[in-house]
Formats: sequence, structure tokens, C-alpha cells
Amino acid sequence: MEAVIIAAGQGSRLREVYSPKPLTPIFGLKLLERIILTGKNAGIRHFKIVVGYQAEKIISAIGDGTKYDVRIEYIHNPRWELGNGVSVLQAEGHVKDRFLLLMSDHIFDETMLKRLIRHGVEDDHCILCVDRNLKADYFALDDVTRVFTHGETISNIGKSLTQYNAIDTGVFLCRPVIFQALRKSTARGEYSLAAGNRILASEGKLHALDVTGHFWVDVDNREALQKAQHILIRQLFKPTDGPISRTINRRLSTWISARLAKYNISPNTITLVSFGLAICSAFLFALGGYIQVLLAGIMAQLSSVLDGCDGEIARLKLKFSTFGEWLDLILDRYADGFIIMGITISLWQTYQNVFIWIIGFATLTGTFMNSYTATIHDELLRQYDTHTPSLRLGRDVRLFIIFLGALCNELLLTLLVLLVVTNFGALRRLYSLKHVYQIDTTD
Amino acid sequence: MEAVIIAAGQGSRLREVYSPKPLTPIFGLKLLERIILTGKNAGIRHFKIVVGYQAEKIISAIGDGTKYDVRIEYIHNPRWELGNGVSVLQAEGHVKDRFLLLMSDHIFDETMLKRLIRHGVEDDHCILCVDRNLKADYFALDDVTRVFTHGETISNIGKSLTQYNAIDTGVFLCRPVIFQALRKSTARGEYSLAAGNRILASEGKLHALDVTGHFWVDVDNREALQKAQHILIRQLFKPTDGPISRTINRRLSTWISARLAKYNISPNTITLVSFGLAICSAFLFALGGYIQVLLAGIMAQLSSVLDGCDGEIARLKLKFSTFGEWLDLILDRYADGFIIMGITISLWQTYQNVFIWIIGFATLTGTFMNSYTATIHDELLRQYDTHTPSLRLGRDVRLFIIFLGALCNELLLTLLVLLVVTNFGALRRLYSLKHVYQIDTTD
Repeated sequence: MEAVIIAAGQGSRLREVYSPKPLTPIFGLKLLERIILTGKNAGIRHFKIVVGYQAEKIISAIGDGTKYDVRIEYIHNPRWELGNGVSVLQAEGHVKDRFLLLMSDHIFDETMLKRLIRHGVEDDHCILCVDRNLKADYFALDDVTRVFTHGETISNIGKSLTQYNAIDTGVFLCRPVIFQALRKSTARGEYSLAAGNRILASEGKLHALDVTGHFWVDVDNREALQKAQHILIRQLFKPTDGPISRTINRRLSTWISARLAKYNISPNTITLVSFGLAICSAFLFALGGYIQVLLAGIMAQLSSVLDGCDGEIARLKLKFSTFGEWLDLILDRYADGFIIMGITISLWQTYQNVFIWIIGFATLTGTFMNSYTATIHDELLRQYDTHTPSLRLGRDVRLFIIFLGALCNELLLTLLVLLVVTNFGALRRLYSLKHVYQIDTTD
Repeated sequence: MEAVIIAAGQGSRLREVYSPKPLTPIFGLKLLERIILTGKNAGIRHFKIVVGYQAEKIISAIGDGTKYDVRIEYIHNPRWELGNGVSVLQAEGHVKDRFLLLMSDHIFDETMLKRLIRHGVEDDHCILCVDRNLKADYFALDDVTRVFTHGETISNIGKSLTQYNAIDTGVFLCRPVIFQALRKSTARGEYSLAAGNRILASEGKLHALDVTGHFWVDVDNREALQKAQHILIRQLFKPTDGPISRTINRRLSTWISARLAKYNISPNTITLVSFGLAICSAFLFALGGYIQVLLAGIMAQLSSVLDGCDGEIARLKLKFSTFGEWLDLILDRYADGFIIMGITISLWQTYQNVFIWIIGFATLTGTFMNSYTATIHDELLRQYDTHTPSLRLGRDVRLFIIFLGALCNELLLTLLVLLVVTNFGALRRLYSLKHVYQIDTTD
């Protein structure tokens, strides 16, 4: 599957912010880059970009796709000023029998694209992804292209429709029939893509795929740009976030991530910084003395907050990597181990009792059991459609307990609380599986 | 989907071993129970069993299915002595438009059944699973029903065929057309299922599904019974077994499992015994002194061997449970923690140096990292079709190192070796993901 991206227009309403519009950065990623990477994550490896206004600037910024590990070709549209229908028409002869048609100013999530590709398109038809939530806050009703559908067929489309039941998201799966329609409309002197779509609709050849609930934004002006940023940040909050993460860490980390994303800092660098903070925390704990312990506690909590930023930046910049995820997972575990060792050494210096080490061992075991059971357990419960226990005692909670313990200079109590909480958490997970699929064949 | 199981015959050739044949136990599970549980694992919840010879004995042993959490109904065939075709014909009127037809003496793996169900069957046709490996060691060529196929169509079937290219596995997916064929064959005085199948074949209505490579055995006589036991044991060796498991532990544990399976001992009981041994080992280590350490090492290795038996018995008796798997996983981690703590306490008594505890902490961390990364890592590598590093440093290796260390009374060296091996293993796994799917969008 290949994708045609229309990036030829002037984007006059966003000109005051950035020009040309397809290069407008959102969290350090240009609009056009975002479309390309979203497409890539949905499995597209070949892009044809129709350029016009400031074509050279776009071509030199984006290049041939090597840096995104995809293939990019450019199609020049000298008559871009006429309208975006002319730009689409320019792609005729450059594409195969089936292609995605995307706008460089409509950003959206990759699952929407994957659904569209899976859905497929009949011969001599085109499919448009539509949103049926007419009251959504991520578009202005007087600005969007409105769609009127009968079942899956689009019977009318246009900005000024008074009778409509869906919104055009700007994401299409096309057959060459689109070019026939556009030739008819341009021959009439109507140069917009909407004009071609109206012809397709009148011939019953334009279908709708309902993608209500998926993320998409038409970045048309300053307000839409801010809205898009707001939604992208909102999406970083995960349903699996623990209570401390939800109420404290995630708010702080997304604030930091939104600012860091502008710079060329890789998620892995942030992972390493977060790990470094945890190591410093462990050393300070081991030194003992209230000031050191207090600083150590603050660093542990700071490390916990930053621990969210790596993944957030990776998602904001569509820069996910399996290696990065693993680096994070593995360094988190080592960081946990170091911090608990630091606390144990600190307590050992005070009490000189071997039971301190035994408590440390048991707490370390519980901590690992918590992480060990978390991922697989969630996966299992999803499979069996059982609910996750509502209170998640994860790393956010553990490090927050350490932070509070350091604040009160109560390290022994901290260790004992962690010992109970973590081991209890692991056993609770085991217990919750007690009734999941069991065969008994004994007589 | 429902299944008809033919369990009406006398099974004269197995009479000296057990009678009636469908109740012959293999590793504590009756043949008929094995068929029912295999079907259940493939998603079947409704079974109709045709009984004849010693019907009451079978019905009282198997019951209405409550104990297997399925529904079982019985169909009586008073004329069972005529042949198994008559037994199949007896099911007419009791089944829906599509049903599985299984023999109570043909055992097979559930994936074969799942494949057959997924494959489906056209109207007015039947499908027979066939094995194309004519040289396999799990059947005697002069005893099986031979099949001759043209492409997917079976053109002839029978025990005495001289021209054949596949073997009948006794697993069918049927439409009611089978009853029409059987009425024709019985009208001619031919009462076997094979006779009906020959008619279906002659009408081009019997298709073949190639299941070569799947496990199946026709348990017809004493030799076949032994062969089935042998294959079931062979299947317990897993490709993910580590080097010590493969060469030592698995051989011992399967030997034990084969013997324990006859008794009504649940896999979870064995998990608890293995855990108990590990706890004893940890205490003996903590006591110190060569005799105690030696005993501790032997117990650790014994626990490692028994650790294989729970899963093996669960598989031999088709008694898999998610809870049991988790109980095993979680208790294994706690056992690891206890044993390393025991060794550390022992060394502490000797050296009285705080570095012993730090080494213990680091070893415990590495041990957990090993287990933590193992499962998810294997899954990832399978997804990306990359190979697992050939040398697996898992629990079997760790406990064997501990056993050897105890034997030589070199606990400090043992701990140091474990420290290096385990942490190295985790980092090696991380490194192997370095080149798995990475996007770089930086300019």
C-alpha cells in the first residue's frame, strides 16, 4: 500500500505561526513528518508527496525518506493555487490501483489508518474516514467539511451542508475513480477536492468508514494547533497508570515532556538521566544523615517523574523503539535494586543488626515480584476479560513511599511498609487468578 | 460445535490390558477423558458419546460432564457388535448440521482439532485429518486405515489399499451426508465406518486435511499404548529448555512425572513440594557447615528437577491451569530469593564483611533480571522472528551452579559466578534488541 500526501497549499491561516504549513512543528515533529511516521507505523513504506507552495523548502526538509526508513517521491503541482483537487489530480499516473490519500495538515492516530487499510475498498469506489461525534471539541463546526451519509454511502459532502451527520477527517482510501471525478469537476472550473468528492458522492461511489473515537485534528489555524497539542498530551495519560502517577507524576512529566520534545533529546537519554538520578539517590541513602536522606528521597521521586518522560517523548515524537522500552524496563529494575540497597546500607550503619539485611532482601524480592507479575498479569486479565484490581501498587507508589519515608527520616518503617505492600501485591495478583480457567479431572 | 465420540466397540486387542477400552488409563487419564479434555481445550463444550459394549461402566465412570465442565449425552447402540459404522449411524438425529466425529481410541493434540475446526467443511462433504508421513513410528502400516488422495479429495480409503499416500487419523469434521453414505453401506451388509467412507469417497464427498507433524496415535493394542506413552513423554521436552534442563533435569523429571501421574496428585501439590525443598535448602545454607551446605545444594538441585514435574503432569493429564502456572512462577522467584539469602547469611557468618551482603543483593537483582527478561524477551524475538541466543542461562543453570558450588563448598565463588552470569544474561538480552525496529526522526 502506498500513500499520497497533499502538501501543496499555502496554509494561509497558519502562516503567522509557521510557513510552509506542512513543516509546522508540533512537539519537535513537523506536521508532514508526523503523517509519514503515522503511516509508517501503520505499515506504509512508500509515500508520494504532492508539493507546490515552497516546494523546495519542503523537499529539502523531508528528503527522500532515508531518515524515516521509508521511500518518498515528490510530485510537483505548478497550479497549486487553483485548489487541492488539482494537487490530487496531479498524482494520476504516479499511483497504483489502490492508495491512501492523506492531507499534510490532518494528523491522526495510526490505529485509524490500520482500520481503514484492513477495511479495504471496492473497485471503482473511494472510502472516507468520518467522525460521527458532531459535538466533539477538536474541530470547529463552521470550519470542517460536513458529510451526509445514508448507511455506509455518502450522499453529500461540503462545508456548507445544512443537513449532515458526520465530519470529514481528511483520510481516504482511493481507487483511480477519484481522478475521473476530479477531471469532471475541474473541467467545470471547480478545483477543490470536495468538488470531486461531491461528484463521487452523487454517483454513489463514495463510502464512509466510521472512525468516531479515534484521534484526528485538522491543523488549520493557531487554535487548532493548540488543540492538537492539548490532545496529544492528554493521550499520554494511560489507563494503567498507578494512583501516584495519575495524580502527581504524569502531570509533572507531561509538562516536562511537552517542553523537552522541542529539543533534539532522545528518549533513551532521558532514561539514562532518570537512572543516573536513582543511582545518586542510592548513594545518598547509603551515606546516611538527614540532609543526605532527604536529598536522596527527592531524587528518587524526581527519577520517578522523569521515568515517565522517556515514553512520553517517544510517543509525542512517534519515536517508539523496542530497545528504548527495554532499556527503560531494565534500568528501572536496577534502579529499584540500588535504591533499596542504599536504604539497607543506611539502616545497617545505624542498627548493625543482620535482620536489617534480611528485611532488605525481602523488600527487594517483593519489589521485583511486583514488576515481574505486573506486565504478564495485565495481559492475562485482558485475555480473560477480568478486571484489574483497582488499586495498582506499582513503581510510582513504591518510589513515593520512599520519598515520604525520606522526608520523615523513617527508613526502617519505609522498608517494612514496602516489604508488606510489594509482597502483598504479588500474592494478590496470584490470588486474582485463582478462578481463571481450571480443569479438574480427578475422580 | 459439538463432537460425537464413538466408544461402543469391544476393543478386543486391548482387553488383556483394560476393559472396556475407552476407560484405559494413560498417565492417570482414561482414553475417553483424554479425548473429551482435548476437545474442550479446542473449544468444544458439548459431546455425544455412542456407547454399546459395557455402556453402563463407561457412563458411570465419565458421567454427565460436570467434572470436566462440559455437557455429555450418551447415545446407546444396541447393535454395536456389527461395526463402528452402525455406531456413527446411531448419532443421526442427535446432531446438528456440522459435527466433529472422534474415536475413543484415537488420541491426538488439540491444535490438530483447532486447525480442523478453523478449516471448516463445505455442505454435503466430510473432512478427514490425514497424516502423510507414511514412515512414522507411531503406527503400524499393516494396522492403519490407508488413504489415497488426489489433491484435497480422497479417492479411496481402506485397510487393504495397495496404492495410498496418507493415513487415516480417525478425526473427522462431518455433515449429515455421512449418514446417507452409512445407510447405503449398511444396507449392503457392510457395517464399518470405512465402508461408509468408501461410498463418500466414490462420490467425491470426502476431503483430506493434511495434519502431518501433529501428534496422534491409534491406541489399538499394548504396543500402541506404550508408543502413545512414549510420545506423550517425549512432547514434554520443550525447545526453550535450558542446557541443564535438557541434559539432566528433564530426563529425571519426566521419569518421575510418568510415575506420579498415575496417582491423584495435583500439579500444584508438586509445586508446593518443590518450593518446600527450596526453603529447606535455604535454611540449611544459612546454618553453614559442609554437611549442611552439601545437603542444601542437593535439595536445591532436587527442587530444580521437581520444578519440571508440575508442568509435565499438568500436560500429561491435560490439567493445565493459569493459576497453577502462576503459582509455579511466583514460588520459583521466592525460592530463588530464599536460597540466595541463605547462601549470603552463610557467607556473612564466615566473613562478617558488609560486602557479602552487597554481593548477595547484586546476585539477587541479577537473578530476578534473568527471569524478568526471559518470558517477555522470548515473546518479542518470536514476533520479530529473530533467534534466541543459543545458550540460555535460566533457572536450571543457576540452581545447578549452586549445586556444584555446594558440592565444592565454594559459596563465595558461587555467588560471584551467579552475579556475573545473571547480570550478563540480562544485559545480553537488552543488547540483542538493539537493532529491533527503531525509528529515528532527528534532523
